[in-house]
Amino acid sequence: MRNMNKKISLVVIRRLPRYYRYLGELLNQNIKRISSKELSEKMNVTASQIRQDLNCFGGFGQQGYGYNVEELYYEIGTILGLRNGYKTIIAGAGYLGHALANYAGFEKRGFKTIGIFDSDPAKIGGQAGGVTIYNVADMGDFLKENPADIGILAVPKMSTKAVVDEMVKGGIKGLLNFSYVDLDVPDDVVVENVHLSDSLMTLSYLVREKKKMSKDGGGL
Amino acid sequence: MRNMNKKISLVVIRRLPRYYRYLGELLNQNIKRISSKELSEKMNVTASQIRQDLNCFGGFGQQGYGYNVEELYYEIGTILGLRNGYKTIIAGAGYLGHALANYAGFEKRGFKTIGIFDSDPAKIGGQAGGVTIYNVADMGDFLKENPADIGILAVPKMSTKAVVDEMVKGGIKGLLNFSYVDLDVPDDVVVENVHLSDSLMTLSYLVREKKKMSKDGGGL
Repeated sequence: MRNMNKKISLVVIRRLPRYYRYLGELLNQNIKRISSKELSEKMNVTASQIRQDLNCFGGFGQQGYGYNVEELYYEIGTILGLRNGYKTIIAGAGYLGHALANYAGFEKRGFKTIGIFDSDPAKIGGQAGGVTIYNVADMGDFLKENPADIGILAVPKMSTKAVVDEMVKGGIKGLLNFSYVDLDVPDDVVVENVHLSDSLMTLSYLVREKKKMSKDGGGL
Repeated sequence: MRNMNKKISLVVIRRLPRYYRYLGELLNQNIKRISSKELSEKMNVTASQIRQDLNCFGGFGQQGYGYNVEELYYEIGTILGLRNGYKTIIAGAGYLGHALANYAGFEKRGFKTIGIFDSDPAKIGGQAGGVTIYNVADMGDFLKENPADIGILAVPKMSTKAVVDEMVKGGIKGLLNFSYVDLDVPDDVVVENVHLSDSLMTLSYLVREKKKMSKDGGGL
């Protein structure tokens, strides 16, 4: 019943990590199956959206039974490529690079960091999260010996372009970009931007709205 | 022509920081006005979506003229609450806390970090990004003297709940949550979760799709 040839919209794809997270928690609680209604209450989205989203992959829900948590968790993980053993490198061994290298969530989801790169002689040869920090000037040679799939950009804005060019030349196919610049990459390379201040701005709006509402005497 | 009383959907709100970013870049390039078509090419969304989104706030676009960049930038900033002078505190002075304290983008958008909190005696009394690191045990007292609007959570999972309770008691109304836990907060407090591994999982999917496509001979 899988329907993997259908093109899935990016909007749905962006929701999958969240499903994956919730299903993982259910598994930890030893919950075997869940209805779209129960999942919808937990995740605070409508049951019909859940059914629609998960129908894209076919065959998981059964009328009167609900979803098999383990099967769905496994399948979403496969769809997300978490069983591909992707290797990542991190450019930038500043605070953010260190935070990312130490972030257990990446390795837990199947991403293995194999090298960190910086230009600061005081950092080169050291470690972050148990991974060696290399000279960024050697990144090209490193990638020849140690192919990687994903490059994480935690470098200052002005260094980003040179690092990206080197990564792309070295065969990196996906970039997780924490830099506040739009990247110009070939068609076969994908970019996912993480803009930390976007989340703060959204939060700022929500705080303002809440305050307004409570001043107006509450209610929507 | 402003239409500020209309309830704007959260989906649109989440797109505003991105508009704000692009308009800021246009301003830096001294561009005074832009059509929805030009903006759509830059931002890679449809012109009709842009018109629809910006119509929520009324009166910015004019047939045959386009958008007044400065006015729109200013107004979106106001809607996002960036002129409210929100004060933030950061819990956790690890690598992530340091990265956030040093992140210039927050202050540039009107968010002022007034204190960082940690339990590590080696860190307390030090600084991150020019802001003093205080004992997390003193956070409640600090907030009585120095009211803050937004709390940023960069603490380990197990410490999150206690810190959140203390922040909420201290009057914090918005939480930017980097912890991998769902927060349980009163109705008048809003939470914005940042899940770093979600972005990496989405990227993983996209890398896999690209590879599949190029193996199939390219093309959608």
